[in-house]
Amino acid sequence: MLSKNQIKLIKSLGQKKYRQQLNLFTVEGVKGINEFLKSNYKLQTLFTTASVFETESHLVQDITEVELKKITALKNPNTALAIFEMPQQRLPSNKGLKIALDAIRDPGNLGTIIRLCDWYGVQDLICSTTTVDCYNTKVVQATMGSLTRVNVTYLNLESYLETTKLPVFGTFMSGETIYTSNLPEEGVIVLGNEANGISKSVEDLVLRKITIPQFGTSATTESLNVANAGAIVLSEFRRRSIEK
Amino acid sequence: MLSKNQIKLIKSLGQKKYRQQLNLFTVEGVKGINEFLKSNYKLQTLFTTASVFETESHLVQDITEVELKKITALKNPNTALAIFEMPQQRLPSNKGLKIALDAIRDPGNLGTIIRLCDWYGVQDLICSTTTVDCYNTKVVQATMGSLTRVNVTYLNLESYLETTKLPVFGTFMSGETIYTSNLPEEGVIVLGNEANGISKSVEDLVLRKITIPQFGTSATTESLNVANAGAIVLSEFRRRSIEK
Repeated sequence: MLSKNQIKLIKSLGQKKYRQQLNLFTVEGVKGINEFLKSNYKLQTLFTTASVFETESHLVQDITEVELKKITALKNPNTALAIFEMPQQRLPSNKGLKIALDAIRDPGNLGTIIRLCDWYGVQDLICSTTTVDCYNTKVVQATMGSLTRVNVTYLNLESYLETTKLPVFGTFMSGETIYTSNLPEEGVIVLGNEANGISKSVEDLVLRKITIPQFGTSATTESLNVANAGAIVLSEFRRRSIEK
Repeated sequence: MLSKNQIKLIKSLGQKKYRQQLNLFTVEGVKGINEFLKSNYKLQTLFTTASVFETESHLVQDITEVELKKITALKNPNTALAIFEMPQQRLPSNKGLKIALDAIRDPGNLGTIIRLCDWYGVQDLICSTTTVDCYNTKVVQATMGSLTRVNVTYLNLESYLETTKLPVFGTFMSGETIYTSNLPEEGVIVLGNEANGISKSVEDLVLRKITIPQFGTSATTESLNVANAGAIVLSEFRRRSIEK
């Protein structure tokens, strides 16, 4: 049975403030929870309506469907909700290809970008402190477990770009076209905010401005979705590394 | 002032059933509405809290902020809501590059894919009848006006693929890698459902199975987001057309 305090705790983890105070976050659904269980993330408590998990039993608490409905953030909850501990932040390595986000606000976009990094073997995702929290419930759900395999770090983006020895690329409406410019195997690719793109202070630290050429005859499309732009650019960087 | 019947009508347009009965749909926000006003779409009524639109004044009705809140589907409504007429469905042309969707369910994904088609000059987007309605409020908002420039057609996908003379490509977890296989300038690229991919009956009609190679060492990522996969594949098709 769920106690009032447990319900209160879980509800509070819907807010960034409490996640950070308590160093805890929630994951829902059998598939997602299993991805976190087999990773280095540390389980605090697992609430489930069915005995389908292989983990330390003293951390598992059986609940009813009615109780699950009280704690879920989903419209259609799926079997279980788990509380995990947030890992300590690990600084990005100084080699390889990285993605950096300048004030991405939409949880779905961040989740999709984390999946994308996982697919293309980008180990570090660097986020400005103005980017949505990766432990936000919607982000965690959208990552489909990829969050366990990508190191997401929140830091002062300007300071990071100033000090990194890797070449810094930024996606803009105009710049070198990605299809024909020389793209190295290592570097930081900056993606900007959904509405405003890359901020002026970050733009000043970009070494090479790159762009995705538009093929429509109308040429009035304002922009691609940021996760889509990231997908196209990352694909092109990785394609070059095979070509070599 | 808004009448009760007007409020009822607008609310009803949140449902596909009523949109199809009445042949009407809604668009919100100044930017989005302006894109539809300058397109071939026919305005029925424009409700606005500010005189910022250049259009036939007998179709414009001033409303208050309080009234806007009664009819909006958004958390933060922006100035205006317009009702437009749905255009008659136009069959896809028999040339060029096309995207076909097999049961895409998420409005955000469909909206993003419509923007993508617009960016890459894909004039026809073919949707299975099981794909989410492109006049769904969330889809219209996510397209950022691109819906006015892409011809979206709902039809029996199997029949279409059976009869088209264009080569049919489908994205799968295994197949020819997009980076090295020969990609023509014309064809239909099929993208599958978010959870289940391309259905068996559609798979049987695919001429060439293509795949996006995975670069992660873990190789456990299940899939990319469908709009991201579409972005990567479409980018690669278009890149080849410049290379030639």
